Amino acid sequence: MSNVADWWKTAIIDMEPGRIELRGHPIQDLIGHLSFPEMIWLMVRGDKPTPAQARLFEVALVSAVDHGPQAPSIAAARMAVTCGLPLNNAMASAVNMLGDVHGGAGEQAVELFHHIEAHPAGLDIALNDWISEHGKIIPGFGHRFHTPTDPRAPRLMELVHEAIEAGACEGRYLQIAQRVEAEIAHRKSRPIPMNIDGATAVIFAELGFAPPLARGLFCLSRSVGILAHAWEQIQQGGRNKGPIPPGYLWTYIGD
Amino acid sequence: MSNVADWWKTAIIDMEPGRIELRGHPIQDLIGHLSFPEMIWLMVRGDKPTPAQARLFEVALVSAVDHGPQAPSIAAARMAVTCGLPLNNAMASAVNMLGDVHGGAGEQAVELFHHIEAHPAGLDIALNDWISEHGKIIPGFGHRFHTPTDPRAPRLMELVHEAIEAGACEGRYLQIAQRVEAEIAHRKSRPIPMNIDGATAVIFAELGFAPPLARGLFCLSRSVGILAHAWEQIQQGGRNKGPIPPGYLWTYIGD
Amino acid sequence: MSNVADWWKTAIIDMEPGRIELRGHPIQDLIGHLSFPEMIWLMVRGDKPTPAQARLFEVALVSAVDHGPQAPSIAAARMAVTCGLPLNNAMASAVNMLGDVHGGAGEQAVELFHHIEAHPAGLDIALNDWISEHGKIIPGFGHRFHTPTDPRAPRLMELVHEAIEAGACEGRYLQIAQRVEAEIAHRKSRPIPMNIDGATAVIFAELGFAPPLARGLFCLSRSVGILAHAWEQIQQGGRNKGPIPPGYLWTYIGD
Amino acid sequence: MSNVADWWKTAIIDMEPGRIELRGHPIQDLIGHLSFPEMIWLMVRGDKPTPAQARLFEVALVSAVDHGPQAPSIAAARMAVTCGLPLNNAMASAVNMLGDVHGGAGEQAVELFHHIEAHPAGLDIALNDWISEHGKIIPGFGHRFHTPTDPRAPRLMELVHEAIEAGACEGRYLQIAQRVEAEIAHRKSRPIPMNIDGATAVIFAELGFAPPLARGLFCLSRSVGILAHAWEQIQQGGRNKGPIPPGYLWTYIGD
Repeated sequence: MSNVADWWKTAIIDMEPGRIELRGHPIQDLIGHLSFPEMIWLMVRGDKPTPAQARLFEVALVSAVDHGPQAPSIAAARMAVTCGLPLNNAMASAVNMLGDVHGGAGEQAVELFHHIEAHPAGLDIALNDWISEHGKIIPGFGHRFHTPTDPRAPRLMELVHEAIEAGACEGRYLQIAQRVEAEIAHRKSRPIPMNIDGATAVIFAELGFAPPLARGLFCLSRSVGILAHAWEQIQQGGRNKGPIPPGYLWTYIGD
Repeated sequence: MSNVADWWKTAIIDMEPGRIELRGHPIQDLIGHLSFPEMIWLMVRGDKPTPAQARLFEVALVSAVDHGPQAPSIAAARMAVTCGLPLNNAMASAVNMLGDVHGGAGEQAVELFHHIEAHPAGLDIALNDWISEHGKIIPGFGHRFHTPTDPRAPRLMELVHEAIEAGACEGRYLQIAQRVEAEIAHRKSRPIPMNIDGATAVIFAELGFAPPLARGLFCLSRSVGILAHAWEQIQQGGRNKGPIPPGYLWTYIGD
Repeated sequence: MSNVADWWKTAIIDMEPGRIELRGHPIQDLIGHLSFPEMIWLMVRGDKPTPAQARLFEVALVSAVDHGPQAPSIAAARMAVTCGLPLNNAMASAVNMLGDVHGGAGEQAVELFHHIEAHPAGLDIALNDWISEHGKIIPGFGHRFHTPTDPRAPRLMELVHEAIEAGACEGRYLQIAQRVEAEIAHRKSRPIPMNIDGATAVIFAELGFAPPLARGLFCLSRSVGILAHAWEQIQQGGRNKGPIPPGYLWTYIGD
Repeated sequence: MSNVADWWKTAIIDMEPGRIELRGHPIQDLIGHLSFPEMIWLMVRGDKPTPAQARLFEVALVSAVDHGPQAPSIAAARMAVTCGLPLNNAMASAVNMLGDVHGGAGEQAVELFHHIEAHPAGLDIALNDWISEHGKIIPGFGHRFHTPTDPRAPRLMELVHEAIEAGACEGRYLQIAQRVEAEIAHRKSRPIPMNIDGATAVIFAELGFAPPLARGLFCLSRSVGILAHAWEQIQQGGRNKGPIPPGYLWTYIGD
């Protein structure tokens, strides 16, 4: 019979009636003593961050909460509530869209930094190898809207520098990211600055999060904006709100 | 042409190349200065909480992060990754399940508290009216597993008391909830104590969040556990993991 | 131990290695002998339709496959693939949006027809009772785009008449729907004709499907259009395609 | 302004008030004249199948509707309704799980057949190349439950033979699949027969569907079983039904 109880196994939570322990800590000892970012870290990794680590982790979570209703995810959340969906379903519809192209860039950027770190040759060859395998879009750099600079990235890099001084991290991935940024600028003869995905990827890599968690943590962060927009749309009302105003429909391109 | 740009309207975010403002604040002024819970509050409501409000808000977010793989949402997240889904899709699959019965109890509990507050007659009649409209399950009270007491609720109520002393809230909904708890105990001749949904509903009601936001904020909180479990399952591996071990299948109840 | 195998119970499928039976029929006896609509009917209801019932059922499924990218669901599917989601996730994102307001109108229309059928008073009072409980939008009638007439509804009603002659159904709900249509026209002094949701609701009600299945079967039908649009968008390409062209963004309505 | 109406482009649907054309056909001319599988084909591909093609296409759709509540997708649908989700959200939760490992095997099998077809060397080397790139699991062959034989596959292959005789297809991919089956049996010294994913992949490849559509069409097919199980679970009732019976919980594997 033990195989039934063994079917699901977790080191995250232990429980019996009247007792809940998360990562080995009674929940009543965590509530009121851990900040929300510290709780996120504890749940995902099993240990508690130092105060300096927690501070750096928190700024990454704060920085990516929203980029407006032009993002497919936010638009989806707003459309969903006009279809009558409650907030949980609207949020799910939106988070679902944070895929390889939308929310996955941070994950890819961490992978890129690891790839460069582990590559036996220099940056130039490492970058070429990456491009030949993954295509010419370098994850974490450049922004189609924010030219020349995504305002979130330099602010986050300031805070990475502070975190290095405070002992939260070593700066290894910051250096890699800066070298990538310089190399791309050199190749393109114009700056292609680090964007929000690159900046948060530096932080998550510095703090030792595996690449997929860069995407997972971005989902947590963007869920905040998703919730805010879905709730605002509920208050605005609207029924079956399509992407563009009703007068426009679409272009028929059949024969 | 203005109707196209008018089709989506928001007071949450304003943007032009190189500039992002959230609720009227340049994002670089928020990053590093606002905690993650303060950012959530700002995004959803438009203003910043006081420190005492932020502290109370944070404990509600911390308290509801996980209740184990027996919850359909967590099980869904874990099964999803064994189907090959990346974290965003696994998280969406799980958050989607936080519906009326699973994640909606907090929303219903806030509605119950508002209903009692606004009811012209006493608690007894107000509760009967609620039951005749919504059925006999009183949202926010009783727990099928945690008997006699859900350990999260008394800890949260301690912190509500501290928050009242610190001026974060008035205690109106705490009193209502305590009166409901006493009334149910009287009717059932045994304690049916406040559960996590009731406790967080007290907090969200005290802080002035509308009922649907109790569900939305629960989704943010539980997303943490969902992410942690999905990531743990990725590390454990498994392909197409069903709900129960392969040897059991199901019971066929056809003719 | 039996309670484990008893936890999931179904009359739909029975299975052992090398044997699959659906609703009591070995699957190899169904493949090639049942049409896809007959299989849908068998799976959902447990019995097989008569040929006349199958024909009427099929036209309802065929009629609702698509209404273009202005529908939030179709837009969501198309945006989803530009976020890098594969077809299953794109389809899920879209089907999720077929909520109370978008895909639920057929369910509500069947409920309305049942309500009128069961109401002890005449149509006039039955309709007023419905409106006082559910609001002034009568599900299944009127269309904000197709004025004066949704071309699908009269065609479907022709086929309902043929089905009555062929013995597939009695026409009870067709009559109710026609009386509702006449009553609304009388009240509004202009025609508010039956729409696709009303027309398919007539068919599903005539064939004895419970109201929630009107929504579920609509989801099956619209999944066809969702798949077609998602696939077309994959072929068109695009990355992170927002709802409106990049030049428009949105209107900021904050202070 | 034209770029707004140009933002969404489709050859699938053309529309103005009172007129809906799908793939160039007025919808009222399709309803009652096209079978549901013919409509699916028309929507996805733009042309109509021959009767023999439609018959072969239909058996693939019929064959994959369900494989029971042990499948994560079906379990998710059943759990979702016990969380209070209506059918659209339950169906979405389930379809979302038909990912690379669960619903994507058919897509991979079509890719495998195309890979072998296009490979300049013989089957042996082509298969080795596939394995070195994608791993040792050959999509479309072998079944962890149905030993020795998945009953759906031989029945579908019978119908492929009939379809070749009827001129629906040429049999090129049937031959490739049979050669793969023989090669794997030779390598493993025991039969690893074609499964449902391999069998439907043969059909979809024979009919000229691109690999991703094998997944998309599987989603349509399995949506039928998902709907049936979700509806059965609604009728059975249950609140917050977890994956295994409440008495078992899970195994805590923390320190």
